[in-house]
Amino acid sequence: MLSKNNLLNTILNNNIDFLEKNDQISKNIIIESINNGTMVLLGNINHKNVKPVLIGQPAKVKVNANIGTSPLICSHKEEMEKLQILEKAGADTYMDLSIGGDLDAIRKDMINSSSLPIGTVPLYAAAKHNADKGRTIEQLDFEEVFDEIEKQAEMGVDFMTIHTGITREAAAYAEKNRILGVVSRGGSMISRWILKNNKENPLFTEFDRIVKIAAKHNVTLSLGDSLRPGACADAGDYPQISEVSHLGIQAKYAFENGVQVMIEGPGHVSLDEVESQIKTIKKLTYNAPLYILGPLVIDNSPGYDHISGAIGAAAAVMAGADFLCYLTPAEHLTLPNKEDVYNGVMASKIAAMAGDTALKRKYALDMQNNMSKMRQKLDWQGMKEYALDKDIIDKRRESHKDKAECAMCGEFCSVKLQHNN
Amino acid sequence: MLSKNNLLNTILNNNIDFLEKNDQISKNIIIESINNGTMVLLGNINHKNVKPVLIGQPAKVKVNANIGTSPLICSHKEEMEKLQILEKAGADTYMDLSIGGDLDAIRKDMINSSSLPIGTVPLYAAAKHNADKGRTIEQLDFEEVFDEIEKQAEMGVDFMTIHTGITREAAAYAEKNRILGVVSRGGSMISRWILKNNKENPLFTEFDRIVKIAAKHNVTLSLGDSLRPGACADAGDYPQISEVSHLGIQAKYAFENGVQVMIEGPGHVSLDEVESQIKTIKKLTYNAPLYILGPLVIDNSPGYDHISGAIGAAAAVMAGADFLCYLTPAEHLTLPNKEDVYNGVMASKIAAMAGDTALKRKYALDMQNNMSKMRQKLDWQGMKEYALDKDIIDKRRESHKDKAECAMCGEFCSVKLQHNN
Repeated sequence: MLSKNNLLNTILNNNIDFLEKNDQISKNIIIESINNGTMVLLGNINHKNVKPVLIGQPAKVKVNANIGTSPLICSHKEEMEKLQILEKAGADTYMDLSIGGDLDAIRKDMINSSSLPIGTVPLYAAAKHNADKGRTIEQLDFEEVFDEIEKQAEMGVDFMTIHTGITREAAAYAEKNRILGVVSRGGSMISRWILKNNKENPLFTEFDRIVKIAAKHNVTLSLGDSLRPGACADAGDYPQISEVSHLGIQAKYAFENGVQVMIEGPGHVSLDEVESQIKTIKKLTYNAPLYILGPLVIDNSPGYDHISGAIGAAAAVMAGADFLCYLTPAEHLTLPNKEDVYNGVMASKIAAMAGDTALKRKYALDMQNNMSKMRQKLDWQGMKEYALDKDIIDKRRESHKDKAECAMCGEFCSVKLQHNN
Repeated sequence: MLSKNNLLNTILNNNIDFLEKNDQISKNIIIESINNGTMVLLGNINHKNVKPVLIGQPAKVKVNANIGTSPLICSHKEEMEKLQILEKAGADTYMDLSIGGDLDAIRKDMINSSSLPIGTVPLYAAAKHNADKGRTIEQLDFEEVFDEIEKQAEMGVDFMTIHTGITREAAAYAEKNRILGVVSRGGSMISRWILKNNKENPLFTEFDRIVKIAAKHNVTLSLGDSLRPGACADAGDYPQISEVSHLGIQAKYAFENGVQVMIEGPGHVSLDEVESQIKTIKKLTYNAPLYILGPLVIDNSPGYDHISGAIGAAAAVMAGADFLCYLTPAEHLTLPNKEDVYNGVMASKIAAMAGDTALKRKYALDMQNNMSKMRQKLDWQGMKEYALDKDIIDKRRESHKDKAECAMCGEFCSVKLQHNN
């Protein structure tokens, strides 16, 4: 049915040459993969300056960076600077997760300032407006959530996280049986609403309304994992798999109604369980593109969760994950600052490249081999062409930039020794 | 034969209670594993203040940090500061790889200043003294290498990298057929010597001399991987496997003569090849403890190689690797500074913990679960008990330390929402 989505076809046709070149895969593979729902093209028809992005193997694995204000650290200006930084670092998309300040103004500014596809969680805006009225989360009126989804779709948001799979039963089970209950920000809001009101999740029961809005603007739905594990011990349990099962059924319904869908994934997952997690999720969700947050392979690395996340993400890509949401050194501790944003993107780009290299994608192997050839020549300018961070080579070599070799080994450089053959 | 090593037995008996408690494994497993060569106890009888360390699964996976001067960045004082930093960060051992300044003075100072086991590469000192005399590497007199090994054993060095497995045939093949030839610093020296002099590697042909010195002081031999791949494309090729095969035969000879042995491993290895690499190496080397440098799963992450290395190391631990040599953000670019040393240790500790968690080691699971329980309580003091970096929590929370939640979500904290149940 996706082939009958006229908006999608327009955007696809307008960009197919660029996409083919950028992702180094054929038009036929792109079109076939989109039509069978294993690939999505991020690009809302209302986002005038968007440069659409393909998500779904065998397209290159992409990286998303989350920015946005929080109630405690709230600067419109600084978030706009983070947007510039994440673009410079090489993120493919970003999400505005603002929950402080003038949310509409921030979002509008971002959409106008960047050609990267933007994602949001419309629930956050609805929850903030609800809180601004002095109401608790269980007093949230879900009509305002649906209105927010529609408004943001009209503004040009390209993909939206919507927590459609969490049910009353699974939420209750999670809060009772897990070490860490419900750790998704949006998921915990809905969980609270469900359990306090003793009602089913309206985003679950009225999923068709969301599909209709998405179809109107070619918004890609990113079905949120409210019940993702927030502790390795909670991974793969009943609440998680229950939710994933619902997401799969919803994904199928969305495809059949001409709407593109991604699935969001864990979370905290021990490294030995990453492959089975990813394969189970992909299977249950009809191989829809999988958009993962981590997985963090340990729980006790606050301050360095971009590294724990990169370990899990690389393994997950090898098992089939398609799209990496970055984690920054600030995760679990505070809102990421500008340096965190840069380092988070870099760590995720390493994981994506590690995965694509492991999958023997030609573009990735070419990058590795060209880098190594430049290294063999001690050609530092050449290395900059292929390094994930082009600036860091000069920066770290500043004190000895006149030398052919690096300052670790100096005259005892192994490569230099071979040059003296 | 290791059970007949009296020095080893003395050190083992003097420390068995501490080791049992520290590694959370039984005395019987420790003794049996050491006797069959799958575990080593680092501790030279001449290193008076050493706190011996067990290497080899099921002992906890350990982390080594390399420090030491280079010809271009050479400060005895700063290397001593790095020693303090790596201890603070939680490294289990360190290697002094100095190749600039007064090597004996630096090494002596380090041995006296720290109770961590110290490793060295005696070839470096011999090569430096050779260069100081105005000689090229092919003029190196290997008698000076043997003398240096003996001298350093007497000084108390606990483990030594010795490049015993590289042969004339394999070196020639590597230099001719690889993208990146020989990238090990010591290995490239020997490769140059072999090929220029058209002679076999004396450390290969006279391995028994090294074993005799090691036996005298309970120095653990760390058989060096001169031919480790320096590019993902070079991994698993003939030179690498040829050398590993020799190291296995030498390991067996050393065991049979009462000497403890570790094997050094790659290098640059694509993530899909890490498991087979590690299993092949362990098999060919009679399951001697495997001490790995990375593996780096991509070639093009200069500035962030501690992350690429952590990805490979975590996967390698799951496949059987026992001991992680850290990589720092400075790798391939310059000598690590103090901040690099700290970050390098942290990245390796994450990889070790990820591996031990994946292997379901009780101590690791306890750390994860206790961390998650503290997180569920928003108990920041409690989290510090279980976090790999205890200082970073307060540091990152400084601006909002009076709040129960973190500044990423503020009042919308998912955990806090659940507290309002």
